[in-house]
Amino acid sequence: MSAMFEKIAVLGLGLIGSSICHGVKAQGLAKVVVGHAKSAETRKVALEIGLVSEVFENPADAVKGADLVILCAPVGACAALAAATGKYLREGAIFTDVGSVKGAIVRDCAPHLPLNVHFIPGHPIAGTEQSGPRSGFAELFHHRWCILTPVAGTDLAAIEKLTKFWEALGSNVDVMTADHHDLVLAITSHLPHLIAYNTVATAADLETVTDSEVIKYSASGFRDFTRIAASDPTMWRDVFLNNKEAVLEMLGRFTEELAVLQRAVRWGDGETLFNLFTRAREVRRGIIAAGQDTAAPNFGRDKS
Amino acid sequence: MSAMFEKIAVLGLGLIGSSICHGVKAQGLAKVVVGHAKSAETRKVALEIGLVSEVFENPADAVKGADLVILCAPVGACAALAAATGKYLREGAIFTDVGSVKGAIVRDCAPHLPLNVHFIPGHPIAGTEQSGPRSGFAELFHHRWCILTPVAGTDLAAIEKLTKFWEALGSNVDVMTADHHDLVLAITSHLPHLIAYNTVATAADLETVTDSEVIKYSASGFRDFTRIAASDPTMWRDVFLNNKEAVLEMLGRFTEELAVLQRAVRWGDGETLFNLFTRAREVRRGIIAAGQDTAAPNFGRDKS
Repeated sequence: MSAMFEKIAVLGLGLIGSSICHGVKAQGLAKVVVGHAKSAETRKVALEIGLVSEVFENPADAVKGADLVILCAPVGACAALAAATGKYLREGAIFTDVGSVKGAIVRDCAPHLPLNVHFIPGHPIAGTEQSGPRSGFAELFHHRWCILTPVAGTDLAAIEKLTKFWEALGSNVDVMTADHHDLVLAITSHLPHLIAYNTVATAADLETVTDSEVIKYSASGFRDFTRIAASDPTMWRDVFLNNKEAVLEMLGRFTEELAVLQRAVRWGDGETLFNLFTRAREVRRGIIAAGQDTAAPNFGRDKS
Repeated sequence: MSAMFEKIAVLGLGLIGSSICHGVKAQGLAKVVVGHAKSAETRKVALEIGLVSEVFENPADAVKGADLVILCAPVGACAALAAATGKYLREGAIFTDVGSVKGAIVRDCAPHLPLNVHFIPGHPIAGTEQSGPRSGFAELFHHRWCILTPVAGTDLAAIEKLTKFWEALGSNVDVMTADHHDLVLAITSHLPHLIAYNTVATAADLETVTDSEVIKYSASGFRDFTRIAASDPTMWRDVFLNNKEAVLEMLGRFTEELAVLQRAVRWGDGETLFNLFTRAREVRRGIIAAGQDTAAPNFGRDKS
């Protein structure tokens, strides 16, 4: 494929940023890819493993002349990056991000961006529990969805171009409002992470069961939760601080449902338990049929 | 290895029962392995794929002459199997099970068993989300733990023999009381399953987010929960009906911790969130160091 962009600036070189760099290089989507990272160590690694051709401490230096700028920082750091780079952006550039929350990104970034730049918030629904510049890989976005949340009036050609960019990285692309995105992700991502963190914390705080017992016997279910709970704490703190309303709504529903299950356990109501467990199984089948998870038992991890 | 047992009777030929059959054959642990299954279809499959040399509709026919009998049925079906087979057991036989709950098994099975039989409840901490006679494989128990919960006074030679049996299948073996087992498993297994089922049910019941959206965007966390929630509904109903006290205790603690997290979200208390998330990450490291999960990102399932 011929290069879609002259120069891509990736601001933040963690799991998502470094995966984009790998994917862009693998597909030849840009003539030049430059980066910015706050940490000197990350900047060093980024050059060492060839993520970018140049890396800058000051994000303003990275965005100059770029026709695509991608914010790949924790949600809470995005407004400062928009503020620091806004006046240096090239006319007609596409300015996007990969944050797990979209309403707050629009609210916090838009005021800093000039009107001659196409601001199209985005969110690739992909990731692993790992973080840092060495954790990325080009295939991270394959068969995953990327959601774009442009505001009304955004240039259609720019949306089309960013769509093609994500498709070239292997993703499917959906467009929706920022509000709907935040509601959908609150249930598919934010609630599961909060619940996973909470389950791990509950286990770690027991007096009657030792930490070493929890670890030894974790293959019985608990270990799945710990993978999610190993995700980057800064990123996740920012998600919960910036999608409060939707997360609280989902938490309320979760707690309500849990009260029903708890009552069924207390009263020995096997029928309620069995029916709910049977229904949950169907959702799993849907996810496998949609190609969003492996059908292999235990995610295929026990092949040894 | 020379055969440790003359004849092993496996009562119930689902995931665990069929995995034991495969492991016993692979290691040559018995001269003869026979089975019992309630369903005619399962009995047919068991012979077809060579799990056992003979299979019986009546469990009493299976246990005759066996020096090791292993109950591999849902917890709620174990008492009836003990009642049906007790008087046909060979003198000096070891009678064990694989149930996820131990207190109720001891309470319900022991009264049916003759005193000249060694009753040693057991629980291999291993499994997948799949079920049925075709789901088993010999390696299921490799590097996993198996917990035995013999009552005081149980013949030490019999415990030693059953320990060696599980070790030959690839497991490590621990011995503890049934009560402590039920508490440990309530946090490492029963609570995570209940929470996973509840999360899936919460998502399925939303009016504002469609089922197809939940499925499409599940790679952001939710899909991990659906694997656990795809486990056998009968087995799990029986677990919750038979480990009520410990599950309610863990649920109470979980809800308490969740209230703290929910409050932190509501009040924008980033420090509480960050600290808890950071602590959870450590537990994951412990599990990987103990060989109880893979260190590969996303459990290694995204290698494509």
